[in-house]
Amino acid sequence: MIVLIGYPNKKNHVQTTAVSDHHMGRGMSLEKDLNDANLYYEQIGRALIHKKPTPIQVVKVEYPARSAAKICEAYYKTPSTTDYNGIYRGKPIDFEAKETKSKTSFPFKSIHKHQIEHLRKVLYHQGIGFFIIRFTSFQATYLLDAATLIAMWDDGQKSISYDLVKEYGSLVKEGLTPRLRYLDNVDALYFKEEESYGKES
Amino acid sequence: MIVLIGYPNKKNHVQTTAVSDHHMGRGMSLEKDLNDANLYYEQIGRALIHKKPTPIQVVKVEYPARSAAKICEAYYKTPSTTDYNGIYRGKPIDFEAKETKSKTSFPFKSIHKHQIEHLRKVLYHQGIGFFIIRFTSFQATYLLDAATLIAMWDDGQKSISYDLVKEYGSLVKEGLTPRLRYLDNVDALYFKEEESYGKES
Repeated sequence: MIVLIGYPNKKNHVQTTAVSDHHMGRGMSLEKDLNDANLYYEQIGRALIHKKPTPIQVVKVEYPARSAAKICEAYYKTPSTTDYNGIYRGKPIDFEAKETKSKTSFPFKSIHKHQIEHLRKVLYHQGIGFFIIRFTSFQATYLLDAATLIAMWDDGQKSISYDLVKEYGSLVKEGLTPRLRYLDNVDALYFKEEESYGKES
Repeated sequence: MIVLIGYPNKKNHVQTTAVSDHHMGRGMSLEKDLNDANLYYEQIGRALIHKKPTPIQVVKVEYPARSAAKICEAYYKTPSTTDYNGIYRGKPIDFEAKETKSKTSFPFKSIHKHQIEHLRKVLYHQGIGFFIIRFTSFQATYLLDAATLIAMWDDGQKSISYDLVKEYGSLVKEGLTPRLRYLDNVDALYFKEEESYGKES
């Protein structure tokens, strides 16, 4: 039981409606798992991390009488930053999440060059930056420090092998609530010098 | 002249094409001024702050042959967080920007309740949170700490008078590049104990 003093909008019982159930969990997307985890972490006051909206270029908007503005022509834009950012333990946190069906490697082609450049700047500005990579064939999700992947990218590599993800990355444990307990990995990797944070049981 | 060692994609000459010119500046929107300032601050390596994309609910997408996906029905969603966030001097920074034509007060009705709740959480998680409020009639832009406005909101007030904004807030100086030098206000308000940061001349 975690006791929070003065947390804004603290729920006595953490809402679980929007949080995934383990038994229905298999096959759900990484994005849904992360959104569930972030919602849970926000509700218990452990972190404040959000997925950014998908950038969309709006071309044409109609204003039907007595209704909300209707966007009738728009296009998806290439994201210029990563998908997730926020605050954890007083530190800026920023990451990109990707899934691959490959059983042997994670290909870098699914990462945009400006996402790499963005994470490079996150590290320069003393933020915590990483990738969450899921190998869907094994239902295995790893956290990989941004500096590791960026070094390989700069070296001209086109992918990182599953074996190297296992060696350099850190396996994200799955639990009941949240299903994807990735902040435990962040604790172990980025806060090991500091006192340990109360973990949910 | 600021010398940056090892900053990613450092430009020898800071690009100024996308940065506003003082003489054409009058009447430009606060959003444009902030985007220009953030781009400039990112280019010189002083901060990493972005405006989040506007959240849009996509209802219908067409896939014309040999073209990009076309969104043909979508609606604007109410934002659940503030518009701007990022990293400054290793700290998480998060703010909302608003303009008012009023000459006497800034009305709270232009702020969404969940933006208040979001900023409350930013402060709880030890982030830097504030509002940037521009009184367009006076072309005067102020930075107001989130805690000050939230206290008034909690007290049931519906607005903050211009006089109180001047008293509790901090006037953002305008310059050549960037036009809106709001990080100088952040330095003075949130980092006064620490050594001063090299200011652009």
